[in-house]
Amino acid sequence: MIKRSRFGNPIETEAIINKPEAVEFSSKRLIRTDNGFIINLSEKEMVFGLGENVRGINKRGHIYKSYCDDNPNHQEDTMTLYGAHNFFVLSDSKLGVFLDTPSEITFDIGYTKASEFRIEINKQDFDLYIIEGESIDKVVQEFRGLIGRSYIPPRWSFGYGQCRWSYMSSDEVRTVAENYEKNNMPIDMIYLDIDYMERYKDFTVNKDTFGDLDQLISEMKAKNIHLVPIIDAGIKVEEGYDVYEEGREKGYFCKDADGEDFIVGVWPGRCCFPDMLNSEARAWFGNKYKVLTDMGIDGFWNDMNEPAIFYSEKKLKEAFGKIKEFEGSNLGVDKFFELRDIFNRLGNSREDYASFYHNYRGQKVCHNDVHNLFGYYMTRGASEAFERISPDKRILMFSRASYVGMHRYGGIWQGDNKSWWSHLLMNLKMMPSLNMCGFLYTGADVGGFGSNTTEDLMLRWLQLAVFTPLMRNHSAMGTRRQELYAFEGTERFKKVLDVRYKLLPYIYSEFMKSALKNTMMFRPLAFEYTDDEIACHVEDQLLLGESIMIAPIVEQNAIGRTVYIPERMQLVRFKDGEVISEKIYEKGHAYVEAALDEVILFVRENRILPLSEGGKNVTETNFNDLSLIAFGDEIKPYEYYNDDGESPVKDDYDKYISVLSK
Amino acid sequence: MIKRSRFGNPIETEAIINKPEAVEFSSKRLIRTDNGFIINLSEKEMVFGLGENVRGINKRGHIYKSYCDDNPNHQEDTMTLYGAHNFFVLSDSKLGVFLDTPSEITFDIGYTKASEFRIEINKQDFDLYIIEGESIDKVVQEFRGLIGRSYIPPRWSFGYGQCRWSYMSSDEVRTVAENYEKNNMPIDMIYLDIDYMERYKDFTVNKDTFGDLDQLISEMKAKNIHLVPIIDAGIKVEEGYDVYEEGREKGYFCKDADGEDFIVGVWPGRCCFPDMLNSEARAWFGNKYKVLTDMGIDGFWNDMNEPAIFYSEKKLKEAFGKIKEFEGSNLGVDKFFELRDIFNRLGNSREDYASFYHNYRGQKVCHNDVHNLFGYYMTRGASEAFERISPDKRILMFSRASYVGMHRYGGIWQGDNKSWWSHLLMNLKMMPSLNMCGFLYTGADVGGFGSNTTEDLMLRWLQLAVFTPLMRNHSAMGTRRQELYAFEGTERFKKVLDVRYKLLPYIYSEFMKSALKNTMMFRPLAFEYTDDEIACHVEDQLLLGESIMIAPIVEQNAIGRTVYIPERMQLVRFKDGEVISEKIYEKGHAYVEAALDEVILFVRENRILPLSEGGKNVTETNFNDLSLIAFGDEIKPYEYYNDDGESPVKDDYDKYISVLSK
Repeated sequence: MIKRSRFGNPIETEAIINKPEAVEFSSKRLIRTDNGFIINLSEKEMVFGLGENVRGINKRGHIYKSYCDDNPNHQEDTMTLYGAHNFFVLSDSKLGVFLDTPSEITFDIGYTKASEFRIEINKQDFDLYIIEGESIDKVVQEFRGLIGRSYIPPRWSFGYGQCRWSYMSSDEVRTVAENYEKNNMPIDMIYLDIDYMERYKDFTVNKDTFGDLDQLISEMKAKNIHLVPIIDAGIKVEEGYDVYEEGREKGYFCKDADGEDFIVGVWPGRCCFPDMLNSEARAWFGNKYKVLTDMGIDGFWNDMNEPAIFYSEKKLKEAFGKIKEFEGSNLGVDKFFELRDIFNRLGNSREDYASFYHNYRGQKVCHNDVHNLFGYYMTRGASEAFERISPDKRILMFSRASYVGMHRYGGIWQGDNKSWWSHLLMNLKMMPSLNMCGFLYTGADVGGFGSNTTEDLMLRWLQLAVFTPLMRNHSAMGTRRQELYAFEGTERFKKVLDVRYKLLPYIYSEFMKSALKNTMMFRPLAFEYTDDEIACHVEDQLLLGESIMIAPIVEQNAIGRTVYIPERMQLVRFKDGEVISEKIYEKGHAYVEAALDEVILFVRENRILPLSEGGKNVTETNFNDLSLIAFGDEIKPYEYYNDDGESPVKDDYDKYISVLSK
Repeated sequence: MIKRSRFGNPIETEAIINKPEAVEFSSKRLIRTDNGFIINLSEKEMVFGLGENVRGINKRGHIYKSYCDDNPNHQEDTMTLYGAHNFFVLSDSKLGVFLDTPSEITFDIGYTKASEFRIEINKQDFDLYIIEGESIDKVVQEFRGLIGRSYIPPRWSFGYGQCRWSYMSSDEVRTVAENYEKNNMPIDMIYLDIDYMERYKDFTVNKDTFGDLDQLISEMKAKNIHLVPIIDAGIKVEEGYDVYEEGREKGYFCKDADGEDFIVGVWPGRCCFPDMLNSEARAWFGNKYKVLTDMGIDGFWNDMNEPAIFYSEKKLKEAFGKIKEFEGSNLGVDKFFELRDIFNRLGNSREDYASFYHNYRGQKVCHNDVHNLFGYYMTRGASEAFERISPDKRILMFSRASYVGMHRYGGIWQGDNKSWWSHLLMNLKMMPSLNMCGFLYTGADVGGFGSNTTEDLMLRWLQLAVFTPLMRNHSAMGTRRQELYAFEGTERFKKVLDVRYKLLPYIYSEFMKSALKNTMMFRPLAFEYTDDEIACHVEDQLLLGESIMIAPIVEQNAIGRTVYIPERMQLVRFKDGEVISEKIYEKGHAYVEAALDEVILFVRENRILPLSEGGKNVTETNFNDLSLIAFGDEIKPYEYYNDDGESPVKDDYDKYISVLSK
């Protein structure tokens, strides 16, 4: 049961596709306060959701803020990441809550007071949705029904992709492809980070280094490798740059208080932000992607669209002035730290976000009040353009910033993580929270983006990533190279990577069913084994689809791990190219070993895991002749979804289902 | 067997008290390179040691650098912390290595190449010690014999202490004491951070806020609470400040290349560093502690002695100049980050460390070449002064920076950690590594220094800290208050804290035996159960002394944890003031629950855990009438060490031993 209550006069976000009539607010659990709500938490209550955030699957015990943030520090005390996903579920009462407002919300979940969940909403203009259901799964499904079908990418995007900030030339891209080929490692995508552009200008190509991009695209296509370029939110201020000049002339950029184009510093230096909330500007920006689709590009990632600001022109000027006040005096503790922070605090400042304006539905709206919509509408603009540009073929699209609603237009990656073992575990923990909010096509930068990876971290991370829809190896400038051929044990990487291509039919089928039935692809054990207190607290295992449980090793130097087996399950091991059905475990704890080049998973009793033979890319993988892994006396037939992998998906689900039995 | 080999002409560190004759270098495992050594690692080899560092008990898979560093970011990719502890042991070959040099060393332990441990030494002037033994324990014990007996603090310092940066006045200290009293929570120490001083000047007292410090000291003594003030490394440049003026006149400060006093910015702003390596200056500085001991102070902590530098006067001037070059130009990615880093990179810069000089044994020595000795010699200076000032009573002393050798003069705390669950686990992991290097009196800032703690983190952390010799709750300015009475569930904190005082006889006895017999108080399971591969990889449990194993809960929202039981053990639970001997587990994995207000531990078969009834401070705790916990058919008598807790310890070990049998 869904109840919508309206408070004040909210700004329309279009997160919801079918709004129920608003009713007067009443709730047994939510107590209205001046600026939000309080929920009293019993000792045992768990809180799930909030999409892209750090810490546990159970979010209790920390403060989270919904405010899209270009924040590369994913630490335990981080409160904001790139997305704003205001949906959560209380475990005991099976109560879902969605707060629909594009400005900031603070969720203090038993942090200040262990027994109290305090929600503070920046502006008292919002829609509150309260969803009750017979199970957490049902509550989530109802919510997903409200917000509409999740984005479905082309099937090839379920392959493995290689990225780096940045491959600096066509030839470097060719070398990457050749190295994968040489090592017999499958690959489907190579990503182009900001340096393919001419001085970071969107929809341009650096002629010196990528002058033959058309040719490169066809060469790669011939190998079934898709090139996926980045698009940034800011447009360089430069006379003669057509996108800038057009945007300026048409008045499509965000404005400052005086109605002048608002200037910020991002990658190219001085930039303007296209007003993604203005439907005309958005359509204009979306159409620009055609520059690249015309060359044969069929996938993109949108970046820096929180939007990230290194500095605003105005605040930079102020900073230079401020610095001078410190010169020559004795700088003790307070003054020195103040000085040091002058430039550190320039980036992504709330003051800047409060000082520029959108034209949203004909109204002048302060950016701060719609902050969380920016990345969403940028991605929406692209996606809507793709429907015009490429009506018969799906285009890959994922974004860094997001808000609920954007899940209909693209996936997200989990942002600029680090080569930390804790971030491997965080990758796992974020999967179900994101699924709850409609984000299905997602994954983290495998191996870690910032900091230096190690061979074992890379291998262990891949052992998780073989299960995530988005499987991209990405790393930052200045860090150690982490292409899979860059380590000693190349053969080990191949063994792990090959498992992905064996799993593809199951992963694609489960993804599609989740998208089309509004279910979760990755589920915490707490959602299934609700009466099992131990299962409910497991934070490093997940159910993936209807047939399997994953329990990857996430610690350095470990030779195995304890796994909680919540019901009868069989251990399946991928080892040296073989698939080995091992021990059947009864409910309880088990210690399972797994070498650096193996993948393990657990098959549920009476469920089927279909596997392909694998392949060197998605196109050459056989999605039809499958082997079936299962055990038990009453094996349930498996509803297998498959389609051509590229036509836009309509509502003819049954057409693509076949039933696999054993 | 110990072999010393000399390379070049090393600077004397006095880490070693009994140097064996040097022999020519030869080794089956260490291969000499241009600038260090390479050790080839088998797949299974583990590497233990390196004292104060992040990551695993097994240090494989990361790079560590020995270069004392004021680094509050204890992250997975952190390479330097406050100490330099160049001792490690290879598990398979039972080979210990100590590199005695006060300048930088890099330990690349299978990071760059998984199968290779590469050691790079900044200067090719060092002593190499290779120690072979029949077990890891024996190797460690031989090493500890080389470096001399560990520092032994007064027994009262094994109580619980409360710290904060800062208690701002005598009255605030009184309030803290009263609150502990009111809540019936035991306490032995209250720490004074930098604000007790007059504008951060060492050996001064702020007259406005701590004018009645003498009286406060006696009031607290009457409650058996010891006040423990901080001493910083830098001396404020201020005319009329006696310590500065004396130091300047006597030429006791570190000098720049021109022979002028080297000026750096630290807490008070412009400072000079006393030349801790100059024995005369060191003795002078040590004598200054008398200002406070004369008032009744009997414990200190030395801080900022890496030494931490916010900026040097010279580089600050340069920075202001550099900033100006950026003004007015279009700042793209490279230039903007460069600008932002100008002030960020001022602190603790290698350039500064290379630009000042010591007078060490009559020679002018560049600081960078003896960097790792600074904190060690500061603490040594204090400790040597205490022998003069207080020959009959032990004085509490611990330091932030350290080098092997300093363990004879003071303990260390684990530095400026954060209120992170991962830092609770790190606290555990560091204990054995530090013990290996002689640091026995140690512990972390309980609850976390930086960032905001939560009630449950505080409780879980205390559940570990009841076992660590140094048990101090400490938090930074601007963070949430974390005195144990500052949370909802005060009663729960009392229950956990009381356990400490029951454990005191065992903790003190095991500490003393470790100090006097050169053994480790905290040992990884890998040191005891060497043939048990699972035990060898356990990273979140430790053996504590001869009788027990600890396995604290280190994850938020957990209701229990899996524990690896390496041999027959009995679970003992401290619950509601009771001590409950629970299930006896056979070897294998067990899942054990523990509520937020309980402490659990495991007693080994046939070993005795002596417990006292507890008390409200150490002085009032009965160390004689003990209850004994044990199970098994052949219970081994327990060698119980106890003394008066305050007389300096001589070599009459047996006098203080009694045998407890059951």
